[in-house]
Parts: sequence; C-alpha cells; structure tokens
Amino acid sequence: MTTTLIRQVRLNGQQQSRDLLIEQGRIGRIEPHITPPPGAHVVEGGHRLALPGFIDGHAHIDKSLWGMDWYVNEVPRELPAIIDNERRFRREQAFDSRRQSERIARQAIRLGTTHIRTHIDVDTEIGLRHMEGVLATRDALAEQIYIETVCFPQSGLLGRPGTRALMEEAIKLGADYVGGIDPSSFERNPVAHLDAVFELAAKYGKGVDLHLHEPGELGAFSVELMTERTRALGMQGKVTISHAFCLGEVDPGYQDRLIAGLAEADIAIATTAPANRQVPPYEKLRAAGVRVAAGNDGIRDTWSPYGNGDMLQRAMLMGLKYRWRQDRELAQALHAITRGGAEVMGLKDYGLEVGCRADLVLLAGQAVAEVIAEPPRERAVFKAGRLVADRGECLF
Amino acid sequence: MTTTLIRQVRLNGQQQSRDLLIEQGRIGRIEPHITPPPGAHVVEGGHRLALPGFIDGHAHIDKSLWGMDWYVNEVPRELPAIIDNERRFRREQAFDSRRQSERIARQAIRLGTTHIRTHIDVDTEIGLRHMEGVLATRDALAEQIYIETVCFPQSGLLGRPGTRALMEEAIKLGADYVGGIDPSSFERNPVAHLDAVFELAAKYGKGVDLHLHEPGELGAFSVELMTERTRALGMQGKVTISHAFCLGEVDPGYQDRLIAGLAEADIAIATTAPANRQVPPYEKLRAAGVRVAAGNDGIRDTWSPYGNGDMLQRAMLMGLKYRWRQDRELAQALHAITRGGAEVMGLKDYGLEVGCRADLVLLAGQAVAEVIAEPPRERAVFKAGRLVADRGECLF
Ligand SMILES: [Zn+2]
Ligand SMILES: [Zn+2]
Repeated sequence: MTTTLIRQVRLNGQQQSRDLLIEQGRIGRIEPHITPPPGAHVVEGGHRLALPGFIDGHAHIDKSLWGMDWYVNEVPRELPAIIDNERRFRREQAFDSRRQSERIARQAIRLGTTHIRTHIDVDTEIGLRHMEGVLATRDALAEQIYIETVCFPQSGLLGRPGTRALMEEAIKLGADYVGGIDPSSFERNPVAHLDAVFELAAKYGKGVDLHLHEPGELGAFSVELMTERTRALGMQGKVTISHAFCLGEVDPGYQDRLIAGLAEADIAIATTAPANRQVPPYEKLRAAGVRVAAGNDGIRDTWSPYGNGDMLQRAMLMGLKYRWRQDRELAQALHAITRGGAEVMGLKDYGLEVGCRADLVLLAGQAVAEVIAEPPRERAVFKAGRLVADRGECLF
Repeated sequence: MTTTLIRQVRLNGQQQSRDLLIEQGRIGRIEPHITPPPGAHVVEGGHRLALPGFIDGHAHIDKSLWGMDWYVNEVPRELPAIIDNERRFRREQAFDSRRQSERIARQAIRLGTTHIRTHIDVDTEIGLRHMEGVLATRDALAEQIYIETVCFPQSGLLGRPGTRALMEEAIKLGADYVGGIDPSSFERNPVAHLDAVFELAAKYGKGVDLHLHEPGELGAFSVELMTERTRALGMQGKVTISHAFCLGEVDPGYQDRLIAGLAEADIAIATTAPANRQVPPYEKLRAAGVRVAAGNDGIRDTWSPYGNGDMLQRAMLMGLKYRWRQDRELAQALHAITRGGAEVMGLKDYGLEVGCRADLVLLAGQAVAEVIAEPPRERAVFKAGRLVADRGECLF
C-alpha cells in the first residue's frame, strides 16, 4: 500500500497547517513538517481545510433517480399515496436499483462522503431486488465508500403478507439493521409493528433504525415504546430513530423525559433538519449524551426533487433550521455530518487523529463555517489513504 | 444597439424551443425559427432553459462582507445585541459599503439577478455613508442591474435623535422607499414608529417597505396598523411588509382576516422562507391576490454567514420550507423570484413576452424544478439584451 504525505492542511479548520503522513491506509503522523519517506506520494495541501470524510447517516440510495431523465412530480402529499405512486413507478419503469445506487453513491463520493447508512426498500412487489442491487454496489465500491444497510419495509410490515419473510431474507442476504416505519399513523398497530421489528433484530443480532414521522404525542408514544423495547431486549447502543420530529413538538418537560429515556437506552437520533417540520432539539440531545447523525434522506426520487448528495449542503440546511450563525454553533453541524454519524454507525478509528483510518476531504476555505455556508464544489477525497475523487470527478 | 438572436431556448421551461430576437434591448419576436437579420449577434441557446432575470425583492447589499476575510461570528441571538455588534464592527473596521455593495451585486449578476430591492442602513453613526455607497454602485452598474433602494433605520427611528432627519436626507439623496423595523418589539411604540414612517413616505410621495419580525398576535397588530395607514393615506400598491412571520403564526380565521386586509390595501409581502420561523402562507396570499416577492436578505454579513446571492438557491429554500415537491408547486418558487418580485417592485415590461425588456437567464436543465432543486453554476445572463455574465464571470 502506498505511503502518502499530505502537506500543509488545516485539520478541522485549525489556523496552523500540518503535514499528514498516511501509511497502510491510516494516519501515521501529524506534524508541522514531515520529510517525505522514500517513495511516498506527496500531495500539496496548500493550506486547504482537511475534514474527516463525511457521513450520510440516513440515505435511500436504492431509489434515487440521479442521472435519469427528470421525473415530473405530480405526487399527492399523503404518505400512503406517495408510497403507492412509488410502487406504480417501479412497475412501469423497470427501475434499476443496482445502477442507480452506484450513480448516487459516486455522486456522494465526489462530494466527500466516505460512509453511508442506507435504508433499502423491501416489499412484496420488488422483493429483494433493491437489497441485491445495493449490496452489489456496496461490494463494487468497497474500496471507495463504506455502505451500511437497513432493510426497510417501506410499504408496511403488517398489512402485506409475506413482507416479514422477505425482511428475514434481507437480513440473511446481509442487511446490517432492521428498519421500520410509523408504527401508529402508518402501520395502525404500534405494538405489533415494533414487536415485529425488534423481534427480527433480536433474533438475528441486528440493530434497529426506524423511520418515525409521527407528530407530537403520537410520535412520542412510539419513542416510549421503542425505549422500553430497547431496554427490555438489552439493545442499548444498537437502535436509531430517524427523523423523530415529535421530539421537537412536545412540551419541554415531556421532551426532557423522552430525552432522558433515549440517553439511558443509548438510542441514537438521525435527522435531516427539514425546513417544514419541527426537529429534534439538537443541543439538548447532545447535552444528554444522545448520539446524533445527519442524513440527506432521499435524493431526487419519486418522493422529492431535492438534494445533490452533498453532506455540506445538509450541514448548511441544519444550520439554517437550528439558526446556527456563530462559528462555534456551525461546528455542531460539522460534528453531525462527521463524528456524530460515526458514533451512530459505531465506526472505529474514525477521525483526524494518529491511528485513524485516513478518510478525509480537502477543500478550499478560510473556516469550517465558510465551507458550510457556501460549500465549494472542488474537493479532494481520500478513502483509507487513497485519493478516490478530485475536482468533482471520481478517480475509479 | 445590437440586435441579438438567441436560438432555440425553452422559455420558462416549455418543451418546445424557440428563437428569440432582441432589438433595442427588448424582445422583438418569439418564433420557432427566425432568420438572423443582417449584422445580428447570434447566440446558440442549445435548448437551454430561458428564465426571466431573477429578482431579489429583499436584500442588504450595503452590508455584505462578500470577498472579505471570513468574519468569525460570535454574535448573541438578541436583535439589539446583533445591531450593536454591527455598529461596533463598522466603527472598528472602516467598512467600505461602496466596494462591498458592488462586490455582492456582481455576484448576484453572475447568478442571473437583474433586479434588486435593497434596504440600506441609515443611522447616527454611519449617517448616509451606506446610502451614498449603494447609490454609487447603483449608478456604476446601471446597465447591468436595476437597484431599488429603501432607506432603513436599522438602529431604530425613535430612540436615536437625528435619525428622522437623516432618513429625510436619504430620501432626498434618492431612496425609493422608506423603511421601518418592528414597531412594537424593537421600537417600543408602534403608533409613533409607523406614523413617522408613513408620514415621511407620504410627504415625499414614496412607498414603504418595513421589516416585521414580530411574532404572532404582536406582529399581527402591526400588520393591522399598517393596513389602516395604507388605506387612510391612499398608499395602496406602495407598501411592502418584509418577513411577516406572524402571518404564519396566528390562527387560521384571524389569518384570513389579515390577508383580506392586505389584499384590499394592496400591500405586498416579501419573504426569505426561513427554515427556523413560520412563514406567510404563500398559496393563501396569492389566492387572495396579494403580491409576494422572495429575497435573499443579508448575505454573509455580521448577522448571518449564509447565502451566496443566488435567487435559485432561495427558490430551493422556499420549496423546502413550503414543502413544494410537485413541479407545478415549484413553479410558484420560480414565480416568487421572477414575476412576483416584478409585481412587488412595480416593474413595467418584465417577462419573456414580445415587447418586454430582454432581461433573461439561460441555463442548462431539463425542467424548471430541476434547476431549482440543484441550481447549475453556469448561466448566461442578459440585461436589456446585452450579455452581462457568462459561465460565472461578469463581462464588464
Ligand atoms: Zn428516510
Ligand atoms: Zn432584511
């Protein structure tokens, strides 16, 4: 494996530049000036910022339309109608999840993402096609990006006979987490849905990552049920609740009790910081010790036309939503798209310290807050010490 | 003046491409194919989208730090503290509003903006320096962008003796509108503040554009007072309320009554569609006939690190805030950054029809929704038929 010396970069936006020696895919030394070892590949950092590789903690790379003809969205607003529309689209279009997941993963790599947790639809119409497609992409890009998978019963787990068996097959194929969706508002039976999800996870020793869009007290009840099950099954540290708008909607006293429960059960939160909904209280969650990741969610799919795969854009949207304007506030947005995601995914050896895997992004800018407020397009992206993308192009 | 033939562009995203003949700075003909007149300058449209020049209906080009060293924001959240901090910054930095207003105006031009309404600070410390700076920029860039000015008592009109006289001087210098700010929550005397603002406007035959951040019923009371004054003074069609978060916060019945009042007094609304506040109900306002513009507000200043001058990014943020996902919903965002702004600014001859001034933007994309969801950086920008920016560079 090549030894690489990256010269004069500003780690996490620090004022002083440092040299970074990468050996065996890991950061071996960090010093003001390092003499290149014989045969080392030398990269001029030019006092660019060096940030840890970005982590998309909530994605749907199985369903992106990135690179396809523009999808004219005429979809109604209601969740069941959106899901029906998506199933119909797939029937009519012979959607290629293998190709599309690689396209959007490559787009993410170009922009500095080195790790993705993706939810993958499993239902009685597509069966395991999307699982197989994403797993093939995962294997094809294994040296360029780490992809973690959640088998996701997007069309429901209870109402469509056969889905539970398919979920079991998906786990056997290699899903890392068991997904779930709005236990009350969509599934209509919170206990039955959550029992099914947690039983599957416990049976196969997997974690859980559940989509919770339910509002206010209804969503909070689901949070309570998940907290109870996590503790009862000893699954502390292995459960994530995605979205959890409800945490931003209930009254402050109840909010505090829910957060205490999440902290005790070590349940993580993943957020997209949507402009049109309340959001989990980031600072309160972090102060309580709750792990929080940020995610891009679906990018340019039949659900939504938005997104480009850029986690720095997601950090900007977080900053706008949480009204973070101070530089030290925006450091929280960087945390969410880097270390926060690593904590949620349980990554070892993540970061810009000696001994960590050399997953990092170089980009021009005076400050972290600047590259969040206006993300530059040109980035040099290293995965395990190898340059995988530069100036907007994948190098593989 | 040159005659220009723009070949094969898709007006407002229509499927069929058209040729566009520009004569004397105006759109002379729109036809499937036009033979270039002798001596005409020919531009190949290549089936790009042609959109009307973007309109930033609420800006602060006098205070942007664009192109300066990164400003490390450590500013508290409270409005008076933010304003104090800004005044201190100016004392210490000898801020050059003439230079900075041109920098950010050029950035806007690069990205397709052809019209800006900007609020310009007037206070007892900077006096008329910012007014003079922006008016100089306005004159310097008169052929590239239309800049409309609002003299804005950012530090208050009532509390600091001498401000009212300075506002009068600003109007005499050339301000097109009289500005104001939170009559109750900041100025502490809604009647005195609004009477002062409206009297100044009436005395000089100007319009009003007032910053209203006040929440809920307090803000709604200010809306009522402004509606009363607009009708009493016969200023229908000449008043804008900027932000007006309160319209999205009061109960629906009261909201309807406020909107009916705005419609009857022909008061316009300008919004930035902030992620962290409620927003005026766009569809209800439009259905009632209220004119609505979108604006970028301050860009990279001591208030906020965000923004890049791109009105397409503003349209995206509007879409995210209003949860617009259908293509026909996103057409509303395009309306807000184009025709909606023109209606608020009272522009004549604006648009992509024969006889209109040839202010337009060409950019690659399959659909309007696509260029809103992911604004392309490369744009060709025409002002009165002259190419003023191309591929991210100003041509002047
Ligand atoms: Zn999702
Ligand atoms: Zn403003």
